[in-house]
Amino acid sequence: MERPRHQGMAKNTCMRWRLPLVCLLWEVAMIVLFGVFVRFGPEADAHWEEEKHQMNLTSDIENDFYFRYPSFQDVHVMIFVGFGFLMTFLKRYGFGAVGFNFLLAAFGIQWALLMQGWFHSFQNGKILIGVENLINADFCVGSVCVAFGAILGKTSPIQLLVMTLFQVTLFAVNEYILLNLLHVKDAGGSMTIHTFGAYFGLTVTRVLYRPNLEQSKDKQGSVYHSDLFAMIGTLYLWMYWPSFNSAISEHGDAQHRAAINTYCSLAACVLTTMAFSSMLQKKGKLDMVSREPRALEQCFVSLQHTPGPLSKRDGAREEPSREQGNKAPLPWLCTTFLHQGRSLPEAILTISILCRFIKAFDFTGSYKTRTPSVQGGFQAAGIFVSLLMAFAGGALVGAILKLPIWGDAADENCFEDDIYWEVPEDEESDVYHMHNPDKPASP
Amino acid sequence: MERPRHQGMAKNTCMRWRLPLVCLLWEVAMIVLFGVFVRFGPEADAHWEEEKHQMNLTSDIENDFYFRYPSFQDVHVMIFVGFGFLMTFLKRYGFGAVGFNFLLAAFGIQWALLMQGWFHSFQNGKILIGVENLINADFCVGSVCVAFGAILGKTSPIQLLVMTLFQVTLFAVNEYILLNLLHVKDAGGSMTIHTFGAYFGLTVTRVLYRPNLEQSKDKQGSVYHSDLFAMIGTLYLWMYWPSFNSAISEHGDAQHRAAINTYCSLAACVLTTMAFSSMLQKKGKLDMVSREPRALEQCFVSLQHTPGPLSKRDGAREEPSREQGNKAPLPWLCTTFLHQGRSLPEAILTISILCRFIKAFDFTGSYKTRTPSVQGGFQAAGIFVSLLMAFAGGALVGAILKLPIWGDAADENCFEDDIYWEVPEDEESDVYHMHNPDKPASP
Amino acid sequence: MERPRHQGMAKNTCMRWRLPLVCLLWEVAMIVLFGVFVRFGPEADAHWEEEKHQMNLTSDIENDFYFRYPSFQDVHVMIFVGFGFLMTFLKRYGFGAVGFNFLLAAFGIQWALLMQGWFHSFQNGKILIGVENLINADFCVGSVCVAFGAILGKTSPIQLLVMTLFQVTLFAVNEYILLNLLHVKDAGGSMTIHTFGAYFGLTVTRVLYRPNLEQSKDKQGSVYHSDLFAMIGTLYLWMYWPSFNSAISEHGDAQHRAAINTYCSLAACVLTTMAFSSMLQKKGKLDMVSREPRALEQCFVSLQHTPGPLSKRDGAREEPSREQGNKAPLPWLCTTFLHQGRSLPEAILTISILCRFIKAFDFTGSYKTRTPSVQGGFQAAGIFVSLLMAFAGGALVGAILKLPIWGDAADENCFEDDIYWEVPEDEESDVYHMHNPDKPASP
Repeated sequence: MERPRHQGMAKNTCMRWRLPLVCLLWEVAMIVLFGVFVRFGPEADAHWEEEKHQMNLTSDIENDFYFRYPSFQDVHVMIFVGFGFLMTFLKRYGFGAVGFNFLLAAFGIQWALLMQGWFHSFQNGKILIGVENLINADFCVGSVCVAFGAILGKTSPIQLLVMTLFQVTLFAVNEYILLNLLHVKDAGGSMTIHTFGAYFGLTVTRVLYRPNLEQSKDKQGSVYHSDLFAMIGTLYLWMYWPSFNSAISEHGDAQHRAAINTYCSLAACVLTTMAFSSMLQKKGKLDMVSREPRALEQCFVSLQHTPGPLSKRDGAREEPSREQGNKAPLPWLCTTFLHQGRSLPEAILTISILCRFIKAFDFTGSYKTRTPSVQGGFQAAGIFVSLLMAFAGGALVGAILKLPIWGDAADENCFEDDIYWEVPEDEESDVYHMHNPDKPASP
Repeated sequence: MERPRHQGMAKNTCMRWRLPLVCLLWEVAMIVLFGVFVRFGPEADAHWEEEKHQMNLTSDIENDFYFRYPSFQDVHVMIFVGFGFLMTFLKRYGFGAVGFNFLLAAFGIQWALLMQGWFHSFQNGKILIGVENLINADFCVGSVCVAFGAILGKTSPIQLLVMTLFQVTLFAVNEYILLNLLHVKDAGGSMTIHTFGAYFGLTVTRVLYRPNLEQSKDKQGSVYHSDLFAMIGTLYLWMYWPSFNSAISEHGDAQHRAAINTYCSLAACVLTTMAFSSMLQKKGKLDMVSREPRALEQCFVSLQHTPGPLSKRDGAREEPSREQGNKAPLPWLCTTFLHQGRSLPEAILTISILCRFIKAFDFTGSYKTRTPSVQGGFQAAGIFVSLLMAFAGGALVGAILKLPIWGDAADENCFEDDIYWEVPEDEESDVYHMHNPDKPASP
Repeated sequence: MERPRHQGMAKNTCMRWRLPLVCLLWEVAMIVLFGVFVRFGPEADAHWEEEKHQMNLTSDIENDFYFRYPSFQDVHVMIFVGFGFLMTFLKRYGFGAVGFNFLLAAFGIQWALLMQGWFHSFQNGKILIGVENLINADFCVGSVCVAFGAILGKTSPIQLLVMTLFQVTLFAVNEYILLNLLHVKDAGGSMTIHTFGAYFGLTVTRVLYRPNLEQSKDKQGSVYHSDLFAMIGTLYLWMYWPSFNSAISEHGDAQHRAAINTYCSLAACVLTTMAFSSMLQKKGKLDMVSREPRALEQCFVSLQHTPGPLSKRDGAREEPSREQGNKAPLPWLCTTFLHQGRSLPEAILTISILCRFIKAFDFTGSYKTRTPSVQGGFQAAGIFVSLLMAFAGGALVGAILKLPIWGDAADENCFEDDIYWEVPEDEESDVYHMHNPDKPASP
């Protein structure tokens, strides 16, 4: 383990025993924990027939499955294809982008099912799961994917798994505090998913900052077809956002409204984003995908801040969305105009959060005994807690990830797949080496 | 504005102020118009509970949302991934294909919601929207995507937005005349979407014809991976066609039947298309994607002429499809055999339209007071109006697009992304320039 | 027909008349057979209104269409995009992978609708089809896609169509014997789809084995972007597996449970697969996609052996899954640990099949008069019949495919698209030929 740390010397990035050991141990733990704790919820198990009669339902079609499963599959595609391919824009990091996203998300959803289950679906010592739990697990993992985008290319798969473990845990704790203790209204997962996810990711990035990476700017670029692969991810995230926002809304009009609302908002986002993209580029050209991780962050946050429905969670049910039912579906002005600029400073992000905050006062809320101003105080507390968890948690996790035991790559090997992946020695790579003659052909 | 027009001189293609200005102004207009006119429809707003009782519905699952949302998302994927990637076959125009399709479709659906809303969903001064409106907006934009295919590589983004504005408007007017005034039966959007869309596109292409483009044949070719990207688009258009055809059919058996019908017809199309593709090629090889815009047109038109259900619209409800309920689901013979040949002259297209026309006589129709022959006359009038709108509208829009203010590229820059997009300077492009030494590496 | 067979001489691979003839003749046959036999089922035809009342259903939403259509579309994507792109990993065989998969699947689903219809949906001389038939046809074709993976790159399109014709036929016969005669329980299509499909494919591969192909190892490799295309296929197969397993389960809790079960199992599979992938590679690197057809086979079989629901078919309805309703959803241990190793010998496959076999004893079954041990005997008979059909059928079909009339490629042309496809002469291929100077540029 006493390996030299100074730059230029190869770090030990071999995963042969470390990765399998971590994966298999964790999988054994998962199996034990699932065996002990997890059971099918009432609408997924054999007692559904009795349950159905108790709930005065007349048909199998009223099983929650049919209300949510199509949206669930769309969200699933967003997490694995959307986020995975979004990050394939890097020249030689496509395998890492798709593959590590796959690995961490698959691990994360198992852990999220348990963590969120203990906090929200725990009855008589068992976690009862149904399709809504699957969606919430995917949501939780979505915040990890956002953070992954911020440290893309600089971490080993084990670091990503460790980060996922901690981030999912903190996410579930934060969610519990906000929804169940503070009874905060969290429209569209604004605080629990987006504020927490983005600032957690940014904090981890800051801690893991490597000053020498500025040298290897060329590897941080894209090639023509890698940008097209990234467009697959972008489009799926965009197209399925109505499903993301409506997936856990209440049955009936609330889901319907959430989908329409998001559809309209997103269409407007495209035009404003293109406008700013062209305006901010020196020659007025459009930029295919944002290339800096920061920009990615902002892009998500802004997209996700589109005025969505209130999410249906334990502590914050969504009667307000009924009250505002007949309003125009398009108060997107503030959202899109302010947020879409790729290089606008984060200050604007904060403004937008404040905007949401002010907007939150409008909701007189389901927690009926609170006056609007009291509820406003609780909303502020919710933001404060989310930011605290993000900064403190991010700093802690960043420090853990800096330990020299996780097998991360040396600076000169960042953004390269062949550290962790079998990469075919192909024509393209021959061409690549033709133009980089000082780099040996086989790693 | 007095810039030289003769070939060889660079045109001013800089979008820096024009594109943002157009996008932002239109977006402001959209926001105002949506704020004034658009409201949630009865099944999407808070009155749904009352509505539900009035309609004698017992469950939230009977909200139209659950009948149509899965199909809607499939149609959405067809428009953005299907059409977007279908056109990525060109060597160096993948960004334009996906990106401009994204831009025009996102703008188009907003304008289509308004236009179709004013004509079909207008009550008490408000447009009431629900999931069916979203699907119809996507359909309308589909006809713009078809036209985009016909002028691919030769237009600036502003021209595309202008074309979208006009085409959506004409589409909605044509639809109104046919369905609400003539009470024409428009099976599968045959006249409103496909006949109108294809001939409008062809007319615009003819007006924008550039004789010198024959020289740059090489840039109009594909490369190996660009053809694979195009296959993503092709497959999604093919796979989700049953959703396209069933999305706005009536609830229950009609949607069921439309999906089955399309599934079977499409499977047959693949074999006949492959057969003709092999037969018409000199060495009997198969062609991955049709490379000429014309062929694309035809392909769509033929695919879309598959015997689908009658679309459910105001003026033309679809009882006939119930009457023909127990027939075999596969009268595809004429459709597939005639239409799939890539280079068959357009005459065949017209024949096929006549076929449909004759078929239309079978439908005694919901407009019950009409005799079949009277209805046949109205059908003929419908085709006539659609063609008239397509030719006259296409000529007008083509003339507008020829104005020298839209920033379109010079002939020698057509089919190249780097006019309007930041293109990475990558290995591939180095290789590209290696083989094109007379072209400077940086634009 | 007396053409020389020794290596080095070009075989006649021209498809110009053979392929169109086969396609068009078969399509004519399909049209006649569909015209004679196929009709819409009760829930898809105009009698649905009466039917609905007879079945005491109150709403159109209780049409089977709404229970299954979203899952059907997911399965459809798995067959065409999932399997199609999964096999694009080969350097120069992407067109063949996607295109031939498209061709054979489109033909296969038509023939499967007929074959499965005659065996399972035949009433009064007519095949009555609904959405469940479409799903079953896609399932049946899935087993052909698995077999296609095993002979990828070595066959002509006509051979693939012939294989599809026979395999679909044998599949339907095997399914009929197992489900309707032996009343075997076939959890998740374990025997009918996976055991039969995999061993049929392996047998055909063995018969078509070409010893000289070892020389052209280089063409059997991948390039960087071809591996990324393959990841699209992998992800779609993985993401939509819950739909695959729940698509034809019983309404309500059974579908719900199947989806949850598969979701959890699949997440675990990712970690164990990554672990073994890293462990078995000399430098501990991860492998993007399995490159040997054998590994592909195993991968499918193992994935598909995930403890899914019992499929709902005539002979084997699924009360057992209700009995085990409240169990933990995750008995995946055996499945994932044993199966995921890429190079583990097939022996393990057999063990796993034995595991399932033993597990099958637990199910006391719907066929209520049988004791568990008698049912166990029938289960064993089911496996025996499936293997027999696979080996004997595979040998027969392999022998037929060896006839010198199908236009397959010579050894030195295997794994190359330009035998059967118009391939663009692009930069990449120039580069390719730069590195293969002995091969002429134009075929």
